[in-house]
Amino acid sequence: MLGRPAARPVVSMSPTFTLTASCPDQVGIIAAVSGFIAQAGASITEASQHSDPVTGHFFMRYEISAENLPFTKVSFQDALRPLAERFGMDWAVSSSATPCRVLALVSKQDHCLADLLYRWRRQDFAFDLVGVISNHEDLRQDVEQLGLPYHHVPVTPEERTAAFERIEKMFEDTRADVMVLARYMQILPAALCARLSGRIINIHHSFLPSFAGANPYRQAYERGVKIIGATCHYVTEELDAGPIIEQDVMRVHHGDSVERMIALGRDVERAVLARGLRYHVQDRVLVHGNKTVVFP
Amino acid sequence: MLGRPAARPVVSMSPTFTLTASCPDQVGIIAAVSGFIAQAGASITEASQHSDPVTGHFFMRYEISAENLPFTKVSFQDALRPLAERFGMDWAVSSSATPCRVLALVSKQDHCLADLLYRWRRQDFAFDLVGVISNHEDLRQDVEQLGLPYHHVPVTPEERTAAFERIEKMFEDTRADVMVLARYMQILPAALCARLSGRIINIHHSFLPSFAGANPYRQAYERGVKIIGATCHYVTEELDAGPIIEQDVMRVHHGDSVERMIALGRDVERAVLARGLRYHVQDRVLVHGNKTVVFP
Amino acid sequence: MLGRPAARPVVSMSPTFTLTASCPDQVGIIAAVSGFIAQAGASITEASQHSDPVTGHFFMRYEISAENLPFTKVSFQDALRPLAERFGMDWAVSSSATPCRVLALVSKQDHCLADLLYRWRRQDFAFDLVGVISNHEDLRQDVEQLGLPYHHVPVTPEERTAAFERIEKMFEDTRADVMVLARYMQILPAALCARLSGRIINIHHSFLPSFAGANPYRQAYERGVKIIGATCHYVTEELDAGPIIEQDVMRVHHGDSVERMIALGRDVERAVLARGLRYHVQDRVLVHGNKTVVFP
Amino acid sequence: MLGRPAARPVVSMSPTFTLTASCPDQVGIIAAVSGFIAQAGASITEASQHSDPVTGHFFMRYEISAENLPFTKVSFQDALRPLAERFGMDWAVSSSATPCRVLALVSKQDHCLADLLYRWRRQDFAFDLVGVISNHEDLRQDVEQLGLPYHHVPVTPEERTAAFERIEKMFEDTRADVMVLARYMQILPAALCARLSGRIINIHHSFLPSFAGANPYRQAYERGVKIIGATCHYVTEELDAGPIIEQDVMRVHHGDSVERMIALGRDVERAVLARGLRYHVQDRVLVHGNKTVVFP
Repeated sequence: MLGRPAARPVVSMSPTFTLTASCPDQVGIIAAVSGFIAQAGASITEASQHSDPVTGHFFMRYEISAENLPFTKVSFQDALRPLAERFGMDWAVSSSATPCRVLALVSKQDHCLADLLYRWRRQDFAFDLVGVISNHEDLRQDVEQLGLPYHHVPVTPEERTAAFERIEKMFEDTRADVMVLARYMQILPAALCARLSGRIINIHHSFLPSFAGANPYRQAYERGVKIIGATCHYVTEELDAGPIIEQDVMRVHHGDSVERMIALGRDVERAVLARGLRYHVQDRVLVHGNKTVVFP
Repeated sequence: MLGRPAARPVVSMSPTFTLTASCPDQVGIIAAVSGFIAQAGASITEASQHSDPVTGHFFMRYEISAENLPFTKVSFQDALRPLAERFGMDWAVSSSATPCRVLALVSKQDHCLADLLYRWRRQDFAFDLVGVISNHEDLRQDVEQLGLPYHHVPVTPEERTAAFERIEKMFEDTRADVMVLARYMQILPAALCARLSGRIINIHHSFLPSFAGANPYRQAYERGVKIIGATCHYVTEELDAGPIIEQDVMRVHHGDSVERMIALGRDVERAVLARGLRYHVQDRVLVHGNKTVVFP
Repeated sequence: MLGRPAARPVVSMSPTFTLTASCPDQVGIIAAVSGFIAQAGASITEASQHSDPVTGHFFMRYEISAENLPFTKVSFQDALRPLAERFGMDWAVSSSATPCRVLALVSKQDHCLADLLYRWRRQDFAFDLVGVISNHEDLRQDVEQLGLPYHHVPVTPEERTAAFERIEKMFEDTRADVMVLARYMQILPAALCARLSGRIINIHHSFLPSFAGANPYRQAYERGVKIIGATCHYVTEELDAGPIIEQDVMRVHHGDSVERMIALGRDVERAVLARGLRYHVQDRVLVHGNKTVVFP
Repeated sequence: MLGRPAARPVVSMSPTFTLTASCPDQVGIIAAVSGFIAQAGASITEASQHSDPVTGHFFMRYEISAENLPFTKVSFQDALRPLAERFGMDWAVSSSATPCRVLALVSKQDHCLADLLYRWRRQDFAFDLVGVISNHEDLRQDVEQLGLPYHHVPVTPEERTAAFERIEKMFEDTRADVMVLARYMQILPAALCARLSGRIINIHHSFLPSFAGANPYRQAYERGVKIIGATCHYVTEELDAGPIIEQDVMRVHHGDSVERMIALGRDVERAVLARGLRYHVQDRVLVHGNKTVVFP
């Protein structure tokens, strides 16, 4: 068997805790949180904050060197809880010791999946790929030869409901943290989107909100735009309208056919998805309403 | 008086003719046209062609060193006419000796106008600014101090029809070749757009087709896009839907307010308009249907 | 007289203090500083930090809403001093009430100067232009018509020393905070660079370290690069080698002559200089060794 | 066995001939060549020309629909020869029926190779991968599982000469058209570079001419540049100084370590190499002196 990282290369030498939090802004949040961390004798290795003057909301992300901490992740959470409650925080703590678990959904096209598989094998950034689900059999061999489970879940009109029940169960059974639609080409049930809010990432093959829906490259070709792009976003009940994590673009010109746009676009799609997923698994994305704060 | 190029600096040493043509594609077009030019003993200094496999249409642009040509522009046109008719060409010949005449329309914001004035004074590329029309008085001094005429044409609901009749008459009286809406913020009458088809250029402050209509930066802010842009296009009866000449984009992030986006966007707008206008006045843009072929 | 902002439009409604500081990293810096600010009842509206794991140095920039502060700038500095000394900070406090004073040096080319003048007139971002020095007379009228002083200081081999003494004296007499070399094309004396370290900004017309020295566009043309650029950096004794503040690039192709590269490059140069200067006057740039930390 | 395209998917429906030619510019070249093609009743589907005013050299690339041609590639060459000799052309004709044969050289890093393997399997553009040579054993399995030959050719100081003789012989034996150094990390003998001039492509992990030589990301980190890049170029005897085919860049910031730059740079490297190789195998690159003309 080939490629699976038997012993995972250590990406970061010492374990780190990452605290993300958001709450209504008020005087003293940074002081309280950083004071708490300093009292514990811990070093903040990366600190990002953002105060939104329009919504009055505050966002923070602290990376904390956990090496000399007198804390486990659980005791760190316990100690932080009173402070978090005082400020009405929406908060979470993750540990670099337990990487984010990713479940990928694909259809027939494999450029995004192939890129994810490569990054996972080489540990370009730390995440655990726990399996691949597809509505087709095409990509089974590419996945299984890496020792990864491949689940064929057909999505026909009759068995659509059952299919997504299976998929949601697999998400739970694999204890996945995030579902990545790597050109999955199926519309998820609204209830599933709601239940897994902020935990389903899609790559859309256009620079949203331009060309939402089907055949975006054909739409772009017919409109005669000079630049095409791709968008990585969280999936919500409204199609192609969820919070945007990352976007990028590239130039095209009058000589580029729809087919060439599709080929060029593949490179942008895989790059944008990889960047968006990295931001997500490194807890760099905080969602508020239909927008994101990204600390890159 | 300040800044007007009294004797225009010579941008190109020798005069050139530029031939642009489009027609249904068939065998032998390039051979016929380039053969005609070679027989006249003229050098082609820049040659661009494009065959569209979808529409079966052919596009060409030839820059011809006119120095040793036994031709005036008129006799060149006369000599070409039979050949152009044989291929059913939509064609034109321009001479670098008579630069494109530009009439600018503005409202209160001046970043695009200021950039055009600067490029005109410094002859960044060859064009003649023949005057500025505005529905406000604000920018009169900036224009008149350069010796350029400034026409105040108010556009109120009652006098809208009369206002645009005045503007069209000014376009004719100044023998302008192209009307540039440099953030003019008024919707032109459909009939005027039709009559001056391909001769009115607009700069739209979004990456079309995203955020057409009013307040694109606010729309972009609310959608939470990570990239904003600007679009230079020909004006047609349908708002913000005409053939696109040029677009460009820039990154924004969660910390950028609507006001900062507007400020950042000004730099993209003026750059995209300048590039689009340069392509137009150098006859680098061929329109076909609602799309453009641009030979940059 | 035209254009000078008689009463300066208020860019930011309420005054803000900006604290920048750097020091050897240790536990508790953020807690101490943010605690101090919170105790004063002040809001942090923008907070940026960076810990450099290689040098072990820490950098911070806090924007503080000064409206309800029981402090003047001076008393704020006094109160902060003990804390700053405890951590061995290199620190400064600026107030939005007193914008950064900029002295521009130019030669004959005016694209960067014209852009600075435009941004100053329109208050694109808050800064005070206190005057323009040139080794030529060419741009006097453009500057003086805005009510700005224009100083002609010829720099000939014989009077070079005297010339730069005059320039340094003007820098002092105008109480300028920063000197901007807006395509000045003269090499400053090493001693002057040392005395005004971190207070002289240059725009270099290449993507440094490529093509340092003279005629970078010709060098780029001859090397056949596919992308050109510009670099905004602090001036140090070693030519074109100072800490880089900002860079940007654009594509060129085989059809672009040196002259066209120069023309295209003007747009990149003015954009990069404007961005670099904005970062500087908003105290977003912290220098450490020969590198910068930029909080954009 | 996995992935090898058993029956190659047809990228282009009808075969095409591609003619590339360069010669001293003179009146009538386009007319003569396009006339010749028109007389043969062939359609030009893509035509590109460039006249260099500095060197007086002319470059052309014509794609010709070969479907109805009364020609084989050989008879087309025979018919063209007199004309080519008349103009003193450096010329070649290729046929889409025989894709360019590529021999890849790698060391231990596989991001560029993995991307090439993927594009070859999926026929992102048409080329034949004929084998992989490496000075290490690391990547054997990834290559051989696709049915591709993998040759381990160690390059130690003692056997360096013999190693490159083996490599050159493999190049001949595989009838390869081009050798791609996909992060090969070895310096080729000058004589080999000379013999295979224009047929060895390298990807350098910096935006040349910045940071030539070893450890470019470390150099970039230490210089504090705000943008990094990659360069695809032909290999010549002088290290990292050959004609540039393609370049691209990406932004970095003060928080990016050397390691992160290396990781980010991998994405740029593979994209630039893929684009450069595509231009080469599609005969879009014409070399003249130390520069290239690229018709994208």
